[in-house]
Amino acid sequence: MSNYKFIENGSVTSPRGFVAGGVIAGIKPNNTTKRDLGMIFCEKPCAAAAIFTKNRVKSDTIYVTQEHLKNGVAQAVIANSGNANACNPDGYEKAEQMCALAADALGIAADDVIVASTGVIGQALPIEPIEKSVGALKDSMTRDGGTYAAEAIMTTDTIKKEWAVQLTLGGKTVTIGGIAKGSGMIHINMGTTLSFVTTDAAVSAEMLHSALIEAADVSYNMVSVDGDTSTNDTLAIMASGLAGNDEITEKNGDYALFVEALTAAFKAVAKKLAADGEGATKLVIGKVSGAKDESTAKVIAKSVICSSLVKAAMFGADANCGRILCAIGYSGAEVDVKKIDVSYRSAKGEILVCKDGMGLAFDEDKAKEILIESEIDIIINLGDGNGEAEAYGCDLTYDYVKINGDYRT
Amino acid sequence: MSNYKFIENGSVTSPRGFVAGGVIAGIKPNNTTKRDLGMIFCEKPCAAAAIFTKNRVKSDTIYVTQEHLKNGVAQAVIANSGNANACNPDGYEKAEQMCALAADALGIAADDVIVASTGVIGQALPIEPIEKSVGALKDSMTRDGGTYAAEAIMTTDTIKKEWAVQLTLGGKTVTIGGIAKGSGMIHINMGTTLSFVTTDAAVSAEMLHSALIEAADVSYNMVSVDGDTSTNDTLAIMASGLAGNDEITEKNGDYALFVEALTAAFKAVAKKLAADGEGATKLVIGKVSGAKDESTAKVIAKSVICSSLVKAAMFGADANCGRILCAIGYSGAEVDVKKIDVSYRSAKGEILVCKDGMGLAFDEDKAKEILIESEIDIIINLGDGNGEAEAYGCDLTYDYVKINGDYRT
Repeated sequence: MSNYKFIENGSVTSPRGFVAGGVIAGIKPNNTTKRDLGMIFCEKPCAAAAIFTKNRVKSDTIYVTQEHLKNGVAQAVIANSGNANACNPDGYEKAEQMCALAADALGIAADDVIVASTGVIGQALPIEPIEKSVGALKDSMTRDGGTYAAEAIMTTDTIKKEWAVQLTLGGKTVTIGGIAKGSGMIHINMGTTLSFVTTDAAVSAEMLHSALIEAADVSYNMVSVDGDTSTNDTLAIMASGLAGNDEITEKNGDYALFVEALTAAFKAVAKKLAADGEGATKLVIGKVSGAKDESTAKVIAKSVICSSLVKAAMFGADANCGRILCAIGYSGAEVDVKKIDVSYRSAKGEILVCKDGMGLAFDEDKAKEILIESEIDIIINLGDGNGEAEAYGCDLTYDYVKINGDYRT
Repeated sequence: MSNYKFIENGSVTSPRGFVAGGVIAGIKPNNTTKRDLGMIFCEKPCAAAAIFTKNRVKSDTIYVTQEHLKNGVAQAVIANSGNANACNPDGYEKAEQMCALAADALGIAADDVIVASTGVIGQALPIEPIEKSVGALKDSMTRDGGTYAAEAIMTTDTIKKEWAVQLTLGGKTVTIGGIAKGSGMIHINMGTTLSFVTTDAAVSAEMLHSALIEAADVSYNMVSVDGDTSTNDTLAIMASGLAGNDEITEKNGDYALFVEALTAAFKAVAKKLAADGEGATKLVIGKVSGAKDESTAKVIAKSVICSSLVKAAMFGADANCGRILCAIGYSGAEVDVKKIDVSYRSAKGEILVCKDGMGLAFDEDKAKEILIESEIDIIINLGDGNGEAEAYGCDLTYDYVKINGDYRT
C-alpha cells in the first residue's frame, strides 16, 4: 500500500500557505482571451530548489532563477507564456525586471522570486504588459487560484496540468501540489518546459533539490513529444514547512516517503504531458522489462517512444513490429535480438506481435481494436535480466505538423 | 577544377562490363505494376566491398552479403523491394536461396552474389515469386538496364536515384555509376537503405572499402529523413577493372582522385535521398561553418536538420530562429551561443535571422519568399574556428504522417 493519495482537484495552492493567480496581460498583443501571466506566493519564505533544461542555449530566466535560488530560499514565482525571453539581447535585464515588479507588488525581496517564461524564442519580451498587470496579478491570487496560474503558463497545451498528493510524515499530514505545462519542444532531460511544485512539508533546500532529481529521473526525464529539448525548462519546488513535520534534512525514512509521493505525482504529470503533446491523439507508453539493468531498459524505452516511425504507426493504429525492433536496434543498447518479445496493450486487450525477435502473424482486426484506444502500452521483454523502465510519448499526427508548420503567426 | 564530371542519364550500367535489369515479381501479392526484383551483373568477377547499417537489429541479407564479400570478390547483385527479410525466423536461408537462384541463372558461384532486401520488417519473405521470376530477371538485363534495377529497389521513393561520373586515372577514362533508394527510415549512419555502385576502374577490394567509408562519411552519413536507422542499409561497390587503369592498391594519387569523384557523386545522392524523403516537399541543407573543428560542425549540422520543430517550420516556410538555436543548444556540441549567426538562403535570396546568438527583426515577406522554395540552406556560422560541415534533411509534412500512419496495408 502506498503512503500517499492523490487529491481530487488538487493544485499548487493545495498545500498550506500558498496562494496563486493569473491574468490576461497581453504578452502577445493579439491575446485578449487567455491568461498569460501567473503568480504563486507563500505567506512565508520557503526552502526552495529547481532543476533546469540541459540545453546549452538557455533562456536568461534560468540564469536569474539560478542566482535567486543560491541561498535556497524563495517566496514567489512569476511566470509568463507567449514569449520565452530566450536569445534576446536584453533577456537577463527583463527577467530581473519581472522579479523586481513581482517583489515590489508583494513587498518581498527580488531575489526571493523565481521567474520563468515560455513561448516564442528570439523575440524581445515586452515588459510593459507585465508592468501594467502586476497589481491585478497580485490581487488575483487566492487559496484556490492554482488553476489560473496553470492556465497562465499554457502555450499549445489543450488541457491544464494540476495535481496534489497527500501523505503522512511523522503523524503530520503533508500536501504537495503542482502545475505544469508541456506540449511541444518536449524531450528527455526535463522535457517539461515549466513545472512549479509547492508543499507545506518542512524540507531543506538541499533535500528538495535531491528529491527533484530523483523523482524527475523516472518521470520528466522519460517524456518525449518531439525530440526537441527546450531552452526554458524549469522544474521548481517551494516548501513552506507549515505542515509542522520534523524538517527533512537528510535521506531518512521521511525523505523516502516524500520522494515516493513526488515520484508518483511526477509520473502522472509525465503521462499528461505526453498525452497532451502537440497534435497527439494518444498516449504511448514504452514499458521495457527483462533488461540486463535499469539503464539499458531506459535507453530502449526512450528510443522506441521517440521513433517517428513508431509514433506515426501509433497514429495509424498499425501494429507494426518491425519499427519497434528497429528502434531497439539503433538505441545503442546491447541486446540479444533473438530474445525480444513485443506486445501491444490497451483497455481493449493485449496482442503479441513479436516472439524471440521474429515477427508473428496476428489477428489484424484485434490489433486494430487494441490500437484505436487513446492509451497504448508497447510492452517489450528483452528476456535478459531484471531491469525495467517506462517512457512516455505520443503519436505523430497531421496536427503536430500543422501546429508547428506556422507557430509564430 | 575538379577531375571528374557527371554523365547525363548515367546509371549503374554506365561503367564497362555491367548489365542490369528488373522485373515485376510480385513480392507483395497485390503488386502488379512496379518492378520489385532487380539484378546487376558483371561479365567478369569484380573486386567488391560494402558497408552496412549500424543498427544492431540487422536483416539476414546483411549477414549473407558480409559472408560472400569476405574474399573481396563479387559478380552480381540481386535485390528486392516489398519485403525487408528482417526479423524473420528463416531470413538467413531465404537470403541464401536468393543468392543461389541468382547464381544458378547466371552460371556463377552463389558466394559471388550480393543480396539485399527492403520493405516491411518482420514478415516472411515469399521465395516463390523470386524463383518464378529469376529467369526473366536474368533475361531483362541489358547495358542500359540500370534504370530498371533502380526502379526495382524503390519503396516509397517517388523518383529514381541513378548517377554516373567519369574521371581520368593515369590517362584512362574511368566511369563510376550507381543506383540508390531511400525515402523513409533514413538517418545518419548509412541512412540509405540500399545503394549499389559499379565501376570499371581497377581498385582492390580493400581500397574500395576504404573509399566507401571516406565518401559515405560526408554524404550518406549526413542524411536524415526521420531519425530512424534501418535494419537493411547496404552500400555495395563492384569494380570490374575493365577501364585498364593501374589497379589502385594503396592510398596514392589515383585513390584520392577516385575518392573525390565518389564523394561528389555520393553527396549528390544524399541530396536526392533527403529531397525525396517520405512526404518531403523540400530539401533542407544545414551548412555549418566557423566551428572549432569538423566534428563539432557535423554534430550541429545534423542536430539542426534532424529537429522535428525545424523540419515543421521549413514545411510552413517559417523563418524561425529560436528552433535553430535550440537544436544547436541540445546537440551536445560545445558552442558559445553569443557568437552564433543564422541565415536562410534559397534561389530567392538570403536573410539573416540571428546575429551573435540573438534573434533579429527581419522582413517576414522576404523570409517567406525565400523559404517557399524547394531547396533551403540553413547557414550557421559559429564564429569559433574553421570547422565546416553539411547535413542533408527535408521538411516534416502531413504526407510523412500519412505515408507512415498505415504503411503495411
